[in-house]
Amino acid sequence: QKLTFSLKIAISSSLSKIHLNVSHGRLCASSTSFSQRNNSSSANLKVDHDQTTGVAVMHMQSPPVNSLSLDFLTEICITLEKLEMDKGCRGLIITSSQPKVFSAGLDILEMYGKSPERCGEFWKAVQEMWLKLYGSNMVTIAAINGSSPAGGCLMSITCDYRIMADNPRYSIGLNETMLGIVAPFWFKETMVNTVGHRNTEISLELGLLYKPAEALNIGLVDQLVPEDQVLSAATQTMTKWLAIPEHARQITKSMMRKSTIEKLRSNREADIQNFVNFITKESIQKSLRMYMEMLKQKKA
Amino acid sequence: QKLTFSLKIAISSSLSKIHLNVSHGRLCASSTSFSQRNNSSSANLKVDHDQTTGVAVMHMQSPPVNSLSLDFLTEICITLEKLEMDKGCRGLIITSSQPKVFSAGLDILEMYGKSPERCGEFWKAVQEMWLKLYGSNMVTIAAINGSSPAGGCLMSITCDYRIMADNPRYSIGLNETMLGIVAPFWFKETMVNTVGHRNTEISLELGLLYKPAEALNIGLVDQLVPEDQVLSAATQTMTKWLAIPEHARQITKSMMRKSTIEKLRSNREADIQNFVNFITKESIQKSLRMYMEMLKQKKA
Amino acid sequence: QKLTFSLKIAISSSLSKIHLNVSHGRLCASSTSFSQRNNSSSANLKVDHDQTTGVAVMHMQSPPVNSLSLDFLTEICITLEKLEMDKGCRGLIITSSQPKVFSAGLDILEMYGKSPERCGEFWKAVQEMWLKLYGSNMVTIAAINGSSPAGGCLMSITCDYRIMADNPRYSIGLNETMLGIVAPFWFKETMVNTVGHRNTEISLELGLLYKPAEALNIGLVDQLVPEDQVLSAATQTMTKWLAIPEHARQITKSMMRKSTIEKLRSNREADIQNFVNFITKESIQKSLRMYMEMLKQKKA
Repeated sequence: QKLTFSLKIAISSSLSKIHLNVSHGRLCASSTSFSQRNNSSSANLKVDHDQTTGVAVMHMQSPPVNSLSLDFLTEICITLEKLEMDKGCRGLIITSSQPKVFSAGLDILEMYGKSPERCGEFWKAVQEMWLKLYGSNMVTIAAINGSSPAGGCLMSITCDYRIMADNPRYSIGLNETMLGIVAPFWFKETMVNTVGHRNTEISLELGLLYKPAEALNIGLVDQLVPEDQVLSAATQTMTKWLAIPEHARQITKSMMRKSTIEKLRSNREADIQNFVNFITKESIQKSLRMYMEMLKQKKA
Repeated sequence: QKLTFSLKIAISSSLSKIHLNVSHGRLCASSTSFSQRNNSSSANLKVDHDQTTGVAVMHMQSPPVNSLSLDFLTEICITLEKLEMDKGCRGLIITSSQPKVFSAGLDILEMYGKSPERCGEFWKAVQEMWLKLYGSNMVTIAAINGSSPAGGCLMSITCDYRIMADNPRYSIGLNETMLGIVAPFWFKETMVNTVGHRNTEISLELGLLYKPAEALNIGLVDQLVPEDQVLSAATQTMTKWLAIPEHARQITKSMMRKSTIEKLRSNREADIQNFVNFITKESIQKSLRMYMEMLKQKKA
Repeated sequence: QKLTFSLKIAISSSLSKIHLNVSHGRLCASSTSFSQRNNSSSANLKVDHDQTTGVAVMHMQSPPVNSLSLDFLTEICITLEKLEMDKGCRGLIITSSQPKVFSAGLDILEMYGKSPERCGEFWKAVQEMWLKLYGSNMVTIAAINGSSPAGGCLMSITCDYRIMADNPRYSIGLNETMLGIVAPFWFKETMVNTVGHRNTEISLELGLLYKPAEALNIGLVDQLVPEDQVLSAATQTMTKWLAIPEHARQITKSMMRKSTIEKLRSNREADIQNFVNFITKESIQKSLRMYMEMLKQKKA
């Protein structure tokens, strides 16, 4: 348990005020001095940036399940941009402050009953988040402390390393097909780069969600740890990664990912148009409505 | 055990006459009503199309070992075309009625001592079968109830899912090299898409045939079941696949496979020419003759 | 244990004089007649070419650790060229005569404090070795009887098959990043073709060296055997490979590798320029100096 900070200041603020906060009902001492931390929060993101280690932890705290709405995606992108520009930040850990879920993925409400323009704006933000994460010069680690379907899985597989809570009630996967929608080519390629062609094919065609042990087995995550150790394991792994000669690591990462990134970069407009045409179809809108009704009934 | 049907009617016939048939020496009740079945058979194919479930089972029954001759390939292509056009058919299970073998692969007699024109016609039919199967909108499952070398393996890996009889006397693999011939690039790419680059490299260079357990281990098949359960397991799996939103599944399948398919589609003539030039070489003809003589001696 | 031969004659010599040599302190009988061997040695390479079997064993004996200097690379390339042209040579086993090491990889001294011209010449020789090995028509087997970092790993993964000594003190991997330098795209692609994209990504970004058991697990080597059986296991495996129809095997190998080879062939000059620009940077030179000093301190 670490002392966490919660500052309701604008993301763009460079002020570094520190408020104490009781995390999970306990007040604990931080292992680093306060003055070396540079923390910021927007409504839905809390960023702990430890200047000593050069590691930022981005806590997603958008209730109830960190759904990726246009607003939330925009916050994430602004934060990523800021951390990427900050030479003092060399590593980023992404985790969730919401119980039981890392992120539920793209917000269905952004895809249902919206104008083509709004859908396009939304999709552009999804692209932007992927481009920023998959191409980041920082070491990125997903500390997956809950379920991580669809867009949540996408965020995870853009990172350099994935540590997941070993809780069989959680699952992870690109399950878009089960909603009647289709993962675009860059979701697909990110997954192929992670688990290979055949695992991706069967996984995307069936919209599979994997239990942590299964995810580890096919390489969708790299490591399982007890639920209360996800963040500390991520921090330990980060230390190992940050010990690698940085410039060589960055060039190598770019070499591994640039062809995939370039494919989206040079096709962003067509990809947006493709998404908008698909999602605004009457049949797809109907699928989404049915899916949302199913979710409501599940809750009730 | 299911009641099967055997109708000696033309493939093009739309009549649906039903004859009872004793399968494996036993007469068993079918679980679906007769009137909902639409069955057809040519000399070498028996197709059970269950209109209730939308699943067709294509039994290969070309004695002795379902070798893929030009005639048999043509029958298969016509049947595939017909099922693909039939909106009532959403899933296809491919299996064998011959004992101990799924398919022995391309018929060597079509490659030995034939004119270049005939060889070209043959190869075009092989391409056609691959294009139809690998690009099918139907869910395709290979119920591999016997050995499946060369072209038999190719048919299997074009499907969405492979269930094999767990009998160590059976084997599967693209073993063309052992015959002195070369698997073309689209055989190779289908295999790379299934088991990855390195498994394909070593497998094709050595012309390896895998026992079921080995095939499962490298991902060449997806599931092993006792020999008498291959078809029932395929039917169960089919039910699961048909529950997936169809349109999204089809688009996803196309996304995974289209670059490989496109590569052959845009190079069919060159690929035919390449095959004809290679297979009609004196040295290759000699290899084939030696291989056939070896097979004869084995039998004797 | 086999009788080995050591002839200090020029590589280009076609004479076949045979001197007896005591290997590992024991004199043993060879299983093939002397007159069928055609052996040659340069200062740093000893080649046993058994004309009966068509197999050449190339022993690297460049003290202390078979570092790939420009001179050594040139010797290797000349030998490979010679064997490739020799119709009597169908298989090549590469192994080391130095204790505990297969090859320590590229010679750092060739990259430190050298003129751009010299660096370019060096890099061209690295390319040449890779092109000759990865595209060889011979069956190539790496008999990895010691540690095999960086360029040593590269040589290994260009071969058709890798057998490694099961000694946990040895390791293998493309660990360039740990030296602050970057494996070029063709190192990367050779590794992707061997262990897949994700293993390559994590391996290259962290500059990982794998223990033999780990290397086997990810597919970086194909087989582990006790240390004193590496060469005999390679010889046995070679026999199996040479029994495969040769022409079909060669065409298949070429089909698997040609796109990767073509990518370097058509970009050699740009790749050299890229290397020279990178390696002559002040920051990189500093990294190399620090690495060499670290090595010196380790020894002291």
